Amino acid sequence: MIVLGIDPGTADTGYGLVESTGCRLRALGHGVIQTSPGVPLERRLAAIHARVEELVREHAPDTVAVEELYFGTNVRTAFAVGQARGVVLLVAGQRGIPARSYTPQQVKGAVCGHGRAGKEQVSRMVARLLGLPAPPTPDHAADALAVAICELNRGPLERAVARAEQKAEPVA
Amino acid sequence: MIVLGIDPGTADTGYGLVESTGCRLRALGHGVIQTSPGVPLERRLAAIHARVEELVREHAPDTVAVEELYFGTNVRTAFAVGQARGVVLLVAGQRGIPARSYTPQQVKGAVCGHGRAGKEQVSRMVARLLGLPAPPTPDHAADALAVAICELNRGPLERAVARAEQKAEPVA
Repeated sequence: MIVLGIDPGTADTGYGLVESTGCRLRALGHGVIQTSPGVPLERRLAAIHARVEELVREHAPDTVAVEELYFGTNVRTAFAVGQARGVVLLVAGQRGIPARSYTPQQVKGAVCGHGRAGKEQVSRMVARLLGLPAPPTPDHAADALAVAICELNRGPLERAVARAEQKAEPVA
Repeated sequence: MIVLGIDPGTADTGYGLVESTGCRLRALGHGVIQTSPGVPLERRLAAIHARVEELVREHAPDTVAVEELYFGTNVRTAFAVGQARGVVLLVAGQRGIPARSYTPQQVKGAVCGHGRAGKEQVSRMVARLLGLPAPPTPDHAADALAVAICELNRGPLERAVARAEQKAEPVA
């Protein structure tokens, strides 16, 4: 099973691809999609969409896992992140791939065992869980790998239920 | 010149198409793209994207004008509206159509002469400006027509400058 994890943002969208075989986790790739603030927003969003589509075509993930809003965000940030997140979720929707959302607390809890771990602890644990020689950089890519790990941490039964629910609901 | 105005939302995205010829404004169509809360978010966003693409193919607007965040929104709403807005802006970015954002205050100012007009006043003024027999319904569609009118109200010089700026900035 392959999961594409995404930490969305207009300027920096982190991505991380994790494959699970049996109880082993393996990183297939990670990085950051960067767009320049000088470019009109609609073209920045198109660049993010195009790159995420490319990743999906290349790796055929079974699920896309996207980081959710964190509490304490201000409205303007939430609006901006929401735009990037919408475009990422759209790729999943267009290709019929289930998308899952996780709060930063859930991600940290899955990777580090508690929801208030710091960024360094997250990237160290991601490296350990994926057998990487060093903590992945930059932070957005490490976060994206952590989101993918969080999705893979859900039990198989829980995933099957989520998929069945998804199939049962046609688009209105 | 044709403008596609959009009032974005996950459940209800209002759209309105307005054409200006000389100093006359004409409505080419308006309505609401509705998605059901029971459907996974990524599929709702895909439905919004598909319908906006259809409108763009059908009417070939010169600009897409999208309503912005209003002050006083809470974070969760901003996040949700941001997702829908991102998907709408994406259609413009993918097709190379310039997108413009207007706050509700700017839209009301353009249509009613002041930024604190109520919903009924906006839809009455929209009907008058577009020569419609009755105020357009529902509210989201009336708002979308108002956003399109707001964009058409900008002077031709201002629009030319915005377009030139847009062309000068390649996607990074």
